[in-house]
Amino acid sequence: QNCAIDQVRQMRGKYPVQWVDIVGMGDEALFEQIGQLFGIHRLALEDVVNIPQRAKVETFKDHLFIVCQFPRHGRKHTFEQASFFIGKDFVISWREHPSDCFDTIRDRLQFTGRALRDSGTDYLMYALLDALIDSYFPSLERIGEAIDRIDVELEAGPSRPLIIRLHGLRHDLRLLRRIVWPLRDAVDSLTNRHDWLIAPETSIYLRDCHDHVIRIIDSLESYREACSDLRDFYSTEVGNRMNEVMKVLTIISTIFIPLSFLAGLYGMNFNPEVSGWNMPELEWRFGYPAILFVMAAMSIGQLLFFKRKGWLSSFTTTNHKSNGNRTD
Amino acid sequence: QNCAIDQVRQMRGKYPVQWVDIVGMGDEALFEQIGQLFGIHRLALEDVVNIPQRAKVETFKDHLFIVCQFPRHGRKHTFEQASFFIGKDFVISWREHPSDCFDTIRDRLQFTGRALRDSGTDYLMYALLDALIDSYFPSLERIGEAIDRIDVELEAGPSRPLIIRLHGLRHDLRLLRRIVWPLRDAVDSLTNRHDWLIAPETSIYLRDCHDHVIRIIDSLESYREACSDLRDFYSTEVGNRMNEVMKVLTIISTIFIPLSFLAGLYGMNFNPEVSGWNMPELEWRFGYPAILFVMAAMSIGQLLFFKRKGWLSSFTTTNHKSNGNRTD
Amino acid sequence: QNCAIDQVRQMRGKYPVQWVDIVGMGDEALFEQIGQLFGIHRLALEDVVNIPQRAKVETFKDHLFIVCQFPRHGRKHTFEQASFFIGKDFVISWREHPSDCFDTIRDRLQFTGRALRDSGTDYLMYALLDALIDSYFPSLERIGEAIDRIDVELEAGPSRPLIIRLHGLRHDLRLLRRIVWPLRDAVDSLTNRHDWLIAPETSIYLRDCHDHVIRIIDSLESYREACSDLRDFYSTEVGNRMNEVMKVLTIISTIFIPLSFLAGLYGMNFNPEVSGWNMPELEWRFGYPAILFVMAAMSIGQLLFFKRKGWLSSFTTTNHKSNGNRTD
Amino acid sequence: QNCAIDQVRQMRGKYPVQWVDIVGMGDEALFEQIGQLFGIHRLALEDVVNIPQRAKVETFKDHLFIVCQFPRHGRKHTFEQASFFIGKDFVISWREHPSDCFDTIRDRLQFTGRALRDSGTDYLMYALLDALIDSYFPSLERIGEAIDRIDVELEAGPSRPLIIRLHGLRHDLRLLRRIVWPLRDAVDSLTNRHDWLIAPETSIYLRDCHDHVIRIIDSLESYREACSDLRDFYSTEVGNRMNEVMKVLTIISTIFIPLSFLAGLYGMNFNPEVSGWNMPELEWRFGYPAILFVMAAMSIGQLLFFKRKGWLSSFTTTNHKSNGNRTD
Amino acid sequence: QNCAIDQVRQMRGKYPVQWVDIVGMGDEALFEQIGQLFGIHRLALEDVVNIPQRAKVETFKDHLFIVCQFPRHGRKHTFEQASFFIGKDFVISWREHPSDCFDTIRDRLQFTGRALRDSGTDYLMYALLDALIDSYFPSLERIGEAIDRIDVELEAGPSRPLIIRLHGLRHDLRLLRRIVWPLRDAVDSLTNRHDWLIAPETSIYLRDCHDHVIRIIDSLESYREACSDLRDFYSTEVGNRMNEVMKVLTIISTIFIPLSFLAGLYGMNFNPEVSGWNMPELEWRFGYPAILFVMAAMSIGQLLFFKRKGWLSSFTTTNHKSNGNRTD
Repeated sequence: QNCAIDQVRQMRGKYPVQWVDIVGMGDEALFEQIGQLFGIHRLALEDVVNIPQRAKVETFKDHLFIVCQFPRHGRKHTFEQASFFIGKDFVISWREHPSDCFDTIRDRLQFTGRALRDSGTDYLMYALLDALIDSYFPSLERIGEAIDRIDVELEAGPSRPLIIRLHGLRHDLRLLRRIVWPLRDAVDSLTNRHDWLIAPETSIYLRDCHDHVIRIIDSLESYREACSDLRDFYSTEVGNRMNEVMKVLTIISTIFIPLSFLAGLYGMNFNPEVSGWNMPELEWRFGYPAILFVMAAMSIGQLLFFKRKGWLSSFTTTNHKSNGNRTD
Repeated sequence: QNCAIDQVRQMRGKYPVQWVDIVGMGDEALFEQIGQLFGIHRLALEDVVNIPQRAKVETFKDHLFIVCQFPRHGRKHTFEQASFFIGKDFVISWREHPSDCFDTIRDRLQFTGRALRDSGTDYLMYALLDALIDSYFPSLERIGEAIDRIDVELEAGPSRPLIIRLHGLRHDLRLLRRIVWPLRDAVDSLTNRHDWLIAPETSIYLRDCHDHVIRIIDSLESYREACSDLRDFYSTEVGNRMNEVMKVLTIISTIFIPLSFLAGLYGMNFNPEVSGWNMPELEWRFGYPAILFVMAAMSIGQLLFFKRKGWLSSFTTTNHKSNGNRTD
Repeated sequence: QNCAIDQVRQMRGKYPVQWVDIVGMGDEALFEQIGQLFGIHRLALEDVVNIPQRAKVETFKDHLFIVCQFPRHGRKHTFEQASFFIGKDFVISWREHPSDCFDTIRDRLQFTGRALRDSGTDYLMYALLDALIDSYFPSLERIGEAIDRIDVELEAGPSRPLIIRLHGLRHDLRLLRRIVWPLRDAVDSLTNRHDWLIAPETSIYLRDCHDHVIRIIDSLESYREACSDLRDFYSTEVGNRMNEVMKVLTIISTIFIPLSFLAGLYGMNFNPEVSGWNMPELEWRFGYPAILFVMAAMSIGQLLFFKRKGWLSSFTTTNHKSNGNRTD
Repeated sequence: QNCAIDQVRQMRGKYPVQWVDIVGMGDEALFEQIGQLFGIHRLALEDVVNIPQRAKVETFKDHLFIVCQFPRHGRKHTFEQASFFIGKDFVISWREHPSDCFDTIRDRLQFTGRALRDSGTDYLMYALLDALIDSYFPSLERIGEAIDRIDVELEAGPSRPLIIRLHGLRHDLRLLRRIVWPLRDAVDSLTNRHDWLIAPETSIYLRDCHDHVIRIIDSLESYREACSDLRDFYSTEVGNRMNEVMKVLTIISTIFIPLSFLAGLYGMNFNPEVSGWNMPELEWRFGYPAILFVMAAMSIGQLLFFKRKGWLSSFTTTNHKSNGNRTD
Repeated sequence: QNCAIDQVRQMRGKYPVQWVDIVGMGDEALFEQIGQLFGIHRLALEDVVNIPQRAKVETFKDHLFIVCQFPRHGRKHTFEQASFFIGKDFVISWREHPSDCFDTIRDRLQFTGRALRDSGTDYLMYALLDALIDSYFPSLERIGEAIDRIDVELEAGPSRPLIIRLHGLRHDLRLLRRIVWPLRDAVDSLTNRHDWLIAPETSIYLRDCHDHVIRIIDSLESYREACSDLRDFYSTEVGNRMNEVMKVLTIISTIFIPLSFLAGLYGMNFNPEVSGWNMPELEWRFGYPAILFVMAAMSIGQLLFFKRKGWLSSFTTTNHKSNGNRTD
């Protein structure tokens, strides 16, 4: 490891399996040399550098080419591209950035991993792919937790930051889906392939790999639906809130606006002295108590009307927890 | 039953069919021993302990591996994992928690079940799977009833707890779907397999099993749609309510606000003594009756306007029951 | 017909085709006897009594088993289950409730139906299935008419009963779909089967049967979409109404609330005699006409503003009929 | 043409290709005679009269039966049914209503169409089908134009007639889809069929026919999406409008209602002569200017608040045209 | 290049590969001559002129016909049609408008492109197709940037121009999808074809071409979803805004309308001198302070009520940025 291209050339063909792990994309000369040394097709080499590629598996005459995206370790929502060339006696892995995702495999190779060292290039390919696919799970968990947190906060009441976080989550899910679905097809085609390269025993392991990808996709789809449900829930909550606000406005307004009118009526300055027709109520003995009584009666009438309509018992705001413990 | 691993080893190969029913996941030594005794693949053993697994059927050289989730008895929305290994002469079932779902099978084996004892491992496998699948139906029924109850309550009027219960149901359905769909594929692949393990006669029984899973899925999809419909119904109901509230506010406001203005107008203190231009109405003989007449005319005019608009006949609140008895 | 099980046993094998039509599910002894007499598989017999079953076709060694749901005659949204066993020389039909849907077939058999009597069990099966499938059409027509009626009423204006009827229709459609889709698969599998039981000539008739089921499904899907469209239409109509209501409220309020303020302003009792600063307007010669002029100017200004906004020309309420005659 | 059934019978077999074009469905005797003369299956004959049929292609022993719907010429949204029987040496076309859609074919046959006369029944069938399929395009164009017109009008502002026209268009599209999708399957099955009836050269022409149907379906789906988008656009526009209306109401109300209260406050008639506590402000030297100043300050404060909220810059109503010329 | 038809005729057959690049559709004589010279099927020639065609690949006896749409260089949302005829020894490309998209290929042919000159017609076809497909990417990038810009602006606040731009984008995406999906099928069928025309080595290149189309479709679908999400986000934002507006209105109204009533009440002119029942409060020593105290108490009570409801802490308007850098 970390050796120059000459060392690679010298070791070529001396071992049953040669693993070359390249990090970084910049060096064009390296590309040329690697391509010539291992007889790699020009189109495949171009795909290694053109970023981002859709995950795919391509068969060439004497090697297999796999390219896929995986979440970059320690950075949210950033992806890097990994390419693999698998031949009869070599595995080339090509990553954009240095990371420790292959460290465990290297350790197993150097120390304990008898089984790994004795198997062919197909098993090494499985081990590398499996390491990459496992790097999706932390991203998924983070999204799952974010959704749960929004769910809990939303039951307490809708607020704008929630919907913005939800909008961001939907964006991330869209991004992940776009990367994982092609990966499924790629791994699927690997699993169903039985040829000179992939031994039946390895096929069982690839099936396991395939299961992991399917589980990732299951989670993504489930999260997408959860996000849709949350957005709908948010909308109905906003509607409920609006309704409640409108009810308070309507109740207060419809009670007090007519009362105000009545009060205004007897605030008019028609001159009662001109004729007996002009506001004789003002001179009545019980004019004021009478008008107060009328006002009280009107208010009570309206309150009864609202009660019958069910507007007074506003939507309960106690958070009725849906029962059962939830496990995604 | 409840015997030690040594007893299992002694009985190995003495009977045409040996059923080992293991409960609990903790004992690593047991895993090793069972794996060696029955020659089980390492990956399958790992799947038994890694929880939760997607339901799947995997074929190994001399045994079949089935893993699936099923609702844990007596606990809402909690699932446990069951794994099966079926070989020529053994069936191993592995569950997380002790439950009585296999008791009837054990009874049939010990007492009455001639047929069950004489058939091969495939029929025993069918019986175990069938018992697990049947444990889904109580969960489904509970959800179905919850939906019906929400439907009835919603026709009486929308309220916040309803939408929260609905939100919870959607969550549960999402969870169930995610577990049952892979189960369908698994049972499907069992049904369509005709090999050394599964006899044609058992295939007919597995078809029955498959029908049950399909029926579960039909119900789930139907419930999902019902939930969507209910949410839409809730939204329109909230809209209707809001509309009604707004109408009351608008009618009261548009009638009384102009009247209040008129009353306020004649409550102004312009001094009529300064000139004949200043509020001569106040000194008119019939000023007060005239203004009352104007106010009455305005109100009636507006009421007629609202009537023509159809706003007075507010949305009927009688619950028009949709006819027909419903059966899901 | 209406004969005892013994008679059935006696007639067994004497005719090329024996049709046993059983109504009712209660009699367990009958099940046993029929099962033994015609050699019917236990699982199929169980499916006959377990209601409701998904429609399906199952092949057993020497008979075919068909089970399906169909609308119960004369009862809305109630379904009953029909099961058929078709063997080389017998057809057993098993229904839950007595109905007259097979009467025409019986008549054709007894009197005119030469063709029917001379054909094999496959043609009789077709005739029975066709009769059941035709019993769906009245249900469909009823739903179609209900949708059209809601459409017409909705263009006249949204109202709560409409949305409740629509909600009920969606429920019925969901129910029907759940029953008809499996039926399609069942009839499909019958149509594509060419074996000892189904002659090529009958296959042509089954294709016709299949066409009918497809037409039912087409209608259901079309109705579902129509319901969705109607619900969306309802929502926008409610939105339109709300908008109109709000506009009236806003126009009246924004015109009269400022006027009221002005009137209130000059209704204040500041004492003009204390100083010349206190409400000198009240003593002006043309104070009252001036304030009236100001008020009129404000009102006209606001009306012009609203006109420019296009709020005065409220949404037309003439029902613009979409042209063309519609045929579903 | 226009000849009696006897003439048809006489000409039977004398020409390599005999084309019988029948218009109208009423004459039962004709059905019988045609059926016998050309040996047509009873079920196919029934399908000719049972209207409407799903478009389909059915193979009988010595003839092909095609039935499809096509837009009736000159009538919006009305469809008629056309049936074809194609045998070795005859083509029978059967339409509901007289129309001129086959006139060009007839002309080509009588005058110029050497090629058409010399080819077999398959090419004639293609020519007839092609004529029918082309009759869909005017309907599509009309719908496309209607959608474009609604789009343009909608950007000017939402109004109820627009949504009703849109609702009608969706209905028409639903209807068309239901008719065209089966047609696609029918033409598809014709295209993929290579047997005694359809020569490879004709297959190329049928592929062209198939392309046309696919293009019709593409347009329908695109129109459907456009309608959905327009409805969503309408909804958001109505929401925008409502928002604007509410803002005006809120701004005016929140400014003037507190002012009115202040004015009302100093319109109270508490007697200042009773004690110095009762409304001493009324007697202040600068009481009136002070209150006017307070009112002005409040108004300006609120306006600043609204400005900061961004409510004063109401949604722009200039129609920002989306750039680029659109071609469907 | 730019040569007359006679020159083409003279060069016919003299080179292993002859490339004829025709621009413009008007010249009918040219069509006839080209058709005769290369033996092209009449239907294919018709498809060249009938614009727009669905992208498709058609096989004729001795040539392949490809037709597709591609974005016209330098014009937004305008598409032009390109047709190709590929035979054993000729490639004809036919475009609507002159453009420079084939210039690089021409250069490679004339100067550097040894490989291109030595390969067969299939590789030339690949090169031409690839050039056309690459011309989609600028359009996609423009749309992607427009979506990102709308997203950023939307988080700052909803406004009508945003929704109109979004509506326009959806239109463009609909248009692109309708053109690209058939292209995928066409390229797919080219990739999977292995016959006399397309050599296995070229197949690898076509697979690359296919990958590009798939990536275009992935982007389109992702953009479509992004647009839907943005529209939903817009709707909820409008709802939030409305809610906030309503809250301000409700708070101000419900506080001041009752206060106004109280003020109006004591502005009534009932004559206290008539009896002690008529508004004795006006003559109280502390009448005015008392009423002020009542008003203050009412206001504070309502404010507390609103605070408890959580209406005073209006939706935060700080734009909570969703974390993580986004890469489409």
